[in-house]
Amino acid sequence: MKLYDSVRAPNPRRVRIFLKEKGIEIPTVTVDLGAFEHRDAAFSKVNPLQRTPALELDDGTVITESVAICRYFEEIRPEPALFGRTAIEKARVEMWNRRAELELFVPIAHVFRHGHPGMAKHEVPQVAEWAEANRPKMMAGLALLDEQLGGSQFLAGDAYSIADITALCAIDFMKPTKTRVPDEMVHLLRWHHEVSARPSALP
Amino acid sequence: MKLYDSVRAPNPRRVRIFLKEKGIEIPTVTVDLGAFEHRDAAFSKVNPLQRTPALELDDGTVITESVAICRYFEEIRPEPALFGRTAIEKARVEMWNRRAELELFVPIAHVFRHGHPGMAKHEVPQVAEWAEANRPKMMAGLALLDEQLGGSQFLAGDAYSIADITALCAIDFMKPTKTRVPDEMVHLLRWHHEVSARPSALP
Repeated sequence: MKLYDSVRAPNPRRVRIFLKEKGIEIPTVTVDLGAFEHRDAAFSKVNPLQRTPALELDDGTVITESVAICRYFEEIRPEPALFGRTAIEKARVEMWNRRAELELFVPIAHVFRHGHPGMAKHEVPQVAEWAEANRPKMMAGLALLDEQLGGSQFLAGDAYSIADITALCAIDFMKPTKTRVPDEMVHLLRWHHEVSARPSALP
Repeated sequence: MKLYDSVRAPNPRRVRIFLKEKGIEIPTVTVDLGAFEHRDAAFSKVNPLQRTPALELDDGTVITESVAICRYFEEIRPEPALFGRTAIEKARVEMWNRRAELELFVPIAHVFRHGHPGMAKHEVPQVAEWAEANRPKMMAGLALLDEQLGGSQFLAGDAYSIADITALCAIDFMKPTKTRVPDEMVHLLRWHHEVSARPSALP
């Protein structure tokens, strides 16, 4: 088994944190996105979509998409459960993982990819107006999470889950957009402090 | 248990097809998106994000996000399995469901929401340039699925899954973008013909 990983990018980080929470160590190959190694012939054979992370199993099967990779590990090593245990918990984790993605991660990614000069060769065409349109969506996503965390220790309830991992990686990815979580979002800041202090979140 | 549903919109349709495949019937409440009923006070209490579908359980818990709702039903009624059975199958279904969403459903939705005059009050601001930027992404998504279906009966392998439901609802949602699956994508057209003929896909 082999994980194709990249530093700094938020999606590979989701899988790294997930694996640390599970206590799983596997061989990794670092793909340098800055040097466009994800577009070279060797990696394109592994993942024709030219994105990291990608998990290559011993039989040659390649699984891409961060959440699909995480789900594979949840199945082969169920503890600690990071996708929920009961039907309602599993649905709640799925719901909050998707909200963290769709309402926060995606707007942040679009602000960055369509607004940052350093991304001009990665995102073609860059649409500056679309970057700007995503700033209020990003703030609304933060507010949604802040409200939820006012009544809940973690995003999907009492237990840390993949939804927290997605939200953490999204928020830390706001840095290049030059935005911070507003001081008045005290619940989100409390939670961010807590999940950032877990050993899994450290570099 | 109660499902808040809407006609014509692709996400509620994903849940309807899923339930039919499972043989599950539950009471539904139709929310008229054209009349902006999803933004009225009553529905906003059910789902503050003002979107359908939403599933209200008997204890008052509300689950939103189509895939989260489907996952809940997969847990309480496992057969027929629509999220895969083994670890690898589950990872493959997750991967292809996400690819169908991210590479196809999302670009189609953006072409429609940002390009169609009828959506001007729903999508604020509409960014015409972003609609256009999504047309090639949409075509690339179709090509990705066509290639996969050249070697596989269904998207994630030999068994029909939620990935097929997502892709079917995405493709049928191309109609308002005035685009069709190109004739040369024979594998995708073969698959579309087959999944459209299942009783679950009928209105």
